[in-house]
Amino acid sequence: MYDFIVIGGGCSGLSAGMYGTRLGLRTLVFAELPGGLITTTHLVENWPGVVSTTGPDLAMSLYNHAVASGAEIKNEIVSKIEKLADKDGFPQFKVVTSTGEYLCKTILLATGTKHRKLGAPGEAEFENKGVSYCALCDGAFFKNKVVGVVGGGDSAAKEALFLSEHASKVYIIVRRDVLRAEPINGQRVQQNKKIEVLFNTEAEEIFGSKSMEKVKFKQGKGKLSGQELGMQGIFMAIGQDPQTELAKNLGVALNDKKEIIINRKTETNVRGVFAAGDCCDTEFKQAITGSAEAVTASYYAFHICTTGPSF
Amino acid sequence: MYDFIVIGGGCSGLSAGMYGTRLGLRTLVFAELPGGLITTTHLVENWPGVVSTTGPDLAMSLYNHAVASGAEIKNEIVSKIEKLADKDGFPQFKVVTSTGEYLCKTILLATGTKHRKLGAPGEAEFENKGVSYCALCDGAFFKNKVVGVVGGGDSAAKEALFLSEHASKVYIIVRRDVLRAEPINGQRVQQNKKIEVLFNTEAEEIFGSKSMEKVKFKQGKGKLSGQELGMQGIFMAIGQDPQTELAKNLGVALNDKKEIIINRKTETNVRGVFAAGDCCDTEFKQAITGSAEAVTASYYAFHICTTGPSF
Repeated sequence: MYDFIVIGGGCSGLSAGMYGTRLGLRTLVFAELPGGLITTTHLVENWPGVVSTTGPDLAMSLYNHAVASGAEIKNEIVSKIEKLADKDGFPQFKVVTSTGEYLCKTILLATGTKHRKLGAPGEAEFENKGVSYCALCDGAFFKNKVVGVVGGGDSAAKEALFLSEHASKVYIIVRRDVLRAEPINGQRVQQNKKIEVLFNTEAEEIFGSKSMEKVKFKQGKGKLSGQELGMQGIFMAIGQDPQTELAKNLGVALNDKKEIIINRKTETNVRGVFAAGDCCDTEFKQAITGSAEAVTASYYAFHICTTGPSF
Repeated sequence: MYDFIVIGGGCSGLSAGMYGTRLGLRTLVFAELPGGLITTTHLVENWPGVVSTTGPDLAMSLYNHAVASGAEIKNEIVSKIEKLADKDGFPQFKVVTSTGEYLCKTILLATGTKHRKLGAPGEAEFENKGVSYCALCDGAFFKNKVVGVVGGGDSAAKEALFLSEHASKVYIIVRRDVLRAEPINGQRVQQNKKIEVLFNTEAEEIFGSKSMEKVKFKQGKGKLSGQELGMQGIFMAIGQDPQTELAKNLGVALNDKKEIIINRKTETNVRGVFAAGDCCDTEFKQAITGSAEAVTASYYAFHICTTGPSF
């Protein structure tokens, strides 16, 4: 019987592994992808206290800290979480993986999210070599460069506005003939001399050598139909998919974006089940905010495990 | 005119300095005590990703990161913050310090807290040499040692329960004849064989050489009245005083503990004023949670500064 089982081995999950064991909980972390999504980021400059590191190095430091604290980490894929009847007043869950079954009193869902991919040839090849999924994370690397943003929603507008503070030119590549941004952001895009919106335009393929150099557009109604356009970066702002199937099947409430609804204590609607990081309904998600949520979750899990039903 | 003025130079304030400038905000941090309260902690093992460091070293890394990001840091004492009339739709504040006046659009209050001191001789001398104000922070250093907890409330009970997982013996030193703990914690204290409650007992003086070695009790009704008791650690659980006078004078809402009330976006009730860290009403306060709150505050300050009144 574990006190605390953490589903997910990213920044949030590993932080919970460290903190849970530090609080004396028998803690097990299931890390399907040890290190999580940040391992796909080549440069991290916004983890407080670390001027510059790589995604893999940051992940490794969190992993090592969890291990040093005594957390058990298993590289198993969780297929199901079941809520059992309370036992001696404590909540009880069964976690089913590819190779076994585990019982615990509390659960942290830190299952993260996946950036939605465009699916264009060259996209995978130049990921982190010009292709990015986060302007706030990577925008500063494109000072005085030409970049594109793929997407037609408010987030594409906001990514472009943010990028315009660094880049010399920002193209928003919109598939339809309208940019569905919030009015204020739409106005700001229009007024911004660095930003040009390419309507009715779809990226067909991304080309480059060491890093990306240009985008070729599909045939269509847009003004650059079938043509190529040089740019050093392209940001995909076509959405995120939270990985919350396990949560949903456990009866955990999700919002309309399929994110797990948590409160300031990181509690979900199911007693004993907490959530942290990119899979949650926190509006502004960063590695550091997910890590802090995981620390908070560990603390409230500790309270359930040590005080039971009356806390 | 600054975009973002941060009051406080602890873990939260320095993180906001880094993040605000990273988001392109003209950011100024007032650090009365550069590094903040954590500089008084000799060992930090719960900052995710850092297995072990000192409080001053962690503070220095956050300070250096803020400076490297371009934050301006001034060692001035803020005496007053005034809300002025909005300007062009942006909020506007005047920050008055010992040597000047500064205007800005948004404010982060990261003014921290002070541990309430017992005031006993030896307390200051042996701080971090046995005398501690945080069992969760320092408890693990007292494995198989004898420790005391000073205080008669629920937090004293919880500190003692936590310490009992590390220490061989825990005395709760209660001034009155009752421990005012939540029922479950009171029961757990009673049932815990490592914990002994000393009622009607007050520490008079703390003695030691390199580190603390014993406590002498005042004359009184307690069973150890006037006697000495050997212990290697003593934890003061007699309360915290949030430093929120500036906030209060600005019209920011406080709770009954005088903590600043924030929401998940770290917004206070005054538009353009955010708060983060130990001065807030967050229940579980750690360096990492304060830092994450400051990052969140920077993001929403960025939105006010870039989109103005309509966001």
